[in-house]
Amino acid sequence: MPRVKTHLVTWDEVVDWSRNLARLVRESGFRPDLVVAVSRGGFVPARLVCDFLGVENLASIQSQHWTEAAKAGERAILKYPYRLDASGLNVLVVDDIVDTGETLRLARDYVRDNWGPREVKTAALQWISPVAKYRPDYYYLEVKEWVWFQYPWTRLEDTYQFIKRMMSEAYRETGRREWGFSEVVEGFREWYGIDVGEAYYREALRVLVEKGVVDYDAARDRYVLRV
Amino acid sequence: MPRVKTHLVTWDEVVDWSRNLARLVRESGFRPDLVVAVSRGGFVPARLVCDFLGVENLASIQSQHWTEAAKAGERAILKYPYRLDASGLNVLVVDDIVDTGETLRLARDYVRDNWGPREVKTAALQWISPVAKYRPDYYYLEVKEWVWFQYPWTRLEDTYQFIKRMMSEAYRETGRREWGFSEVVEGFREWYGIDVGEAYYREALRVLVEKGVVDYDAARDRYVLRV
Repeated sequence: MPRVKTHLVTWDEVVDWSRNLARLVRESGFRPDLVVAVSRGGFVPARLVCDFLGVENLASIQSQHWTEAAKAGERAILKYPYRLDASGLNVLVVDDIVDTGETLRLARDYVRDNWGPREVKTAALQWISPVAKYRPDYYYLEVKEWVWFQYPWTRLEDTYQFIKRMMSEAYRETGRREWGFSEVVEGFREWYGIDVGEAYYREALRVLVEKGVVDYDAARDRYVLRV
Repeated sequence: MPRVKTHLVTWDEVVDWSRNLARLVRESGFRPDLVVAVSRGGFVPARLVCDFLGVENLASIQSQHWTEAAKAGERAILKYPYRLDASGLNVLVVDDIVDTGETLRLARDYVRDNWGPREVKTAALQWISPVAKYRPDYYYLEVKEWVWFQYPWTRLEDTYQFIKRMMSEAYRETGRREWGFSEVVEGFREWYGIDVGEAYYREALRVLVEKGVVDYDAARDRYVLRV
């Protein structure tokens, strides 16, 4: 039983989900002239949705969650707001997974209020309904129970964060600081119940060394958690 | 022997090439603060490069080839030019495959001249050197002989164009107009030497019916080329 419930999203699933998301849009009668990816999560699904719907125009907008310690809640901000002339166009704003929906709604509102489109709709591969404050116009999968969906485009970031967490908790629980490469791989599989493949474990350990989270003891071929 | 030399680029190759491209950037000492995808081709590699380099800022710019019958050559245009404040930032402009390089160079020039960055570099998974007028600062694979690289994000578009071409030439050569689904699949494999999978053949035929290129005779379950 893994400690953290994780679903490794495969590329085949990404393609399948994007194709089905595009089908829902098509069946609704909405014909986008421009697809806008929410940066960074929406980039891959947006590109695939363009292929499946035959949309030539593809732009992006960076919306992200901002946790403000000073305030009670979270809010989304646009990182690089800019104006694009979308007058008369039907726009589809695309993201990968929607939790509270604040970033997607903000992107939608910004496009609607500043780009002059005819109509704006939103789409996501997955919608986590229990935490949602906003439901996208289109989504392919409704997620009702919390699982960490590990998308291929956050694989390195997730892998090093996961390894860091595993090492930190092992240290807290047992005082263990040293890990061989194969122990990291085995530990990762046990903790998260997924396997991201050797190249990602190697890159993730490189990143953790670079960030000063672990030291690499070359003589003994061991990774040592800095405490 | 296929009639058209085609390489089906797998998702594993896309990830591997993107990881190696990111490695080349990292090893050069260049540290991008912002990645800019050339729309549409650069979206997937740009997102993966962000993961591999740990870059949080991701934007896009749509540059495309414009063939003007009236003029001798081709030129690239920016579809939705806009200004983004990149002052003081190192920017990496990313595309998938570079042939003449005009679209990538145009995007690079535009960012350099209008966004106020510290430095701008360009990167692509593949560089077709024999036709190049511009060489990206970073590329992972140099392509010396012409092959159609069939990337996963243009799979539907390529598949329906390939089927259309196959049917049109078959008609021209032998007068044949009717195809069953499995004949399309077999023909496609023979013509192009690749297999894109049933879902793509189905979608491609749907698109060709929608575009009025073929008619579907439901009673006989045959696709009939309009001539």
